[in-house]
Amino acid sequence: MNNTTVTGLVATTPKHVVTTDGVQITSFRLAVASDKHATNWYTVTMFNQLAINAAISISKSDRIVVTGDLRIRDWDNGERAGTSVEIEATALGHDLAYGSSVFTKTMLVEANA
Amino acid sequence: MNNTTVTGLVATTPKHVVTTDGVQITSFRLAVASDKHATNWYTVTMFNQLAINAAISISKSDRIVVTGDLRIRDWDNGERAGTSVEIEATALGHDLAYGSSVFTKTMLVEANA
Amino acid sequence: MNNTTVTGLVATTPKHVVTTDGVQITSFRLAVASDKHATNWYTVTMFNQLAINAAISISKSDRIVVTGDLRIRDWDNGERAGTSVEIEATALGHDLAYGSSVFTKTMLVEANA
Amino acid sequence: MNNTTVTGLVATTPKHVVTTDGVQITSFRLAVASDKHATNWYTVTMFNQLAINAAISISKSDRIVVTGDLRIRDWDNGERAGTSVEIEATALGHDLAYGSSVFTKTMLVEANA
Repeated sequence: MNNTTVTGLVATTPKHVVTTDGVQITSFRLAVASDKHATNWYTVTMFNQLAINAAISISKSDRIVVTGDLRIRDWDNGERAGTSVEIEATALGHDLAYGSSVFTKTMLVEANA
Repeated sequence: MNNTTVTGLVATTPKHVVTTDGVQITSFRLAVASDKHATNWYTVTMFNQLAINAAISISKSDRIVVTGDLRIRDWDNGERAGTSVEIEATALGHDLAYGSSVFTKTMLVEANA
Repeated sequence: MNNTTVTGLVATTPKHVVTTDGVQITSFRLAVASDKHATNWYTVTMFNQLAINAAISISKSDRIVVTGDLRIRDWDNGERAGTSVEIEATALGHDLAYGSSVFTKTMLVEANA
Repeated sequence: MNNTTVTGLVATTPKHVVTTDGVQITSFRLAVASDKHATNWYTVTMFNQLAINAAISISKSDRIVVTGDLRIRDWDNGERAGTSVEIEATALGHDLAYGSSVFTKTMLVEANA
């Protein structure tokens, strides 16, 4: 069990890709204020309809609330190695503590997406 | 510690009030699908800038993600008694799993609010 | 999604029952300090091996940490009506912030339980 | 906001130190099963009475439930660099889904600790 919820600032322009087998993926970096005046950095990733809507809706410097599964991965590409901390989002939205939003429900067009 | 995060359907038109000493309060009922095909009902309450933005942005039947503090209160008004389950929201937004949103950041007008 | 984690004080002696089809169920009331000096009251319920171990291990007035699914249910028995707030625990333990514990792993005897 | 709750397997013998100004600190590595058959690795750290009780109570290979604040830190010691993912525990206990425990409340000796 690794559910987590964070609120933070979108730090990069969301990157939206469609895989060759049609999977929609959106990801961006998120800066989350931690206690003790430090910042936690996450990569937030999402799929399918959430990926499509986030790519349309989210811009760099937006404030969001996101909930999902936390993943910690060690990586090594031969030249460099590191650890990535990722949230696979199950839900996310603009944080109304920082602004207002106009919402348009998605018509069910997943079959055409 | 009673933090909780839920995603659900706004079930009532948000009610926005300003107290005589100027506190902004918005509240609505939220239906959250639980496991076993049951529904959890919450009263979601928020204050200040979040209350103002939610009153502008949230409509009945919107899908949202909300995080905050859970409060369980027994009440008794002489005629009837019951238990209310409330989330005092610290952050909330439209759930982009169900639609797209256009976000406008709040100018810092808290001093005038 | 209704996951929640709380820390609190066990307020009743745990009740342990076995249903006619062999399901182990343990439950007790839990008092959780909320903000603003109020208390949230939960019924904590658990099943199977967790129910067996909790019945052996947990006493009234113990301090515990519990994580699980939140359920809010309206009930009406004809004479009275009310709302119950329940956590179906997926994991729980004595809170080491308040004491020490000696742990004995369960042998895999579920087939005989 | 970076609260998180995880359940997992203690992967190292807890290390307990007392700083020169008397702060009790305990830490260990925790392996948490993630979805998709992967494992998240955390460093779990705790202070004061929780550190003392955890040092007495927790052994390598124990199953625990822990809740606390997540911290993600990049580090660089000149020779190597990396990212650490840490939970500063506010509560933790042996997970009764995997065993039974005998609990002894701490007498209030914090003033002498």
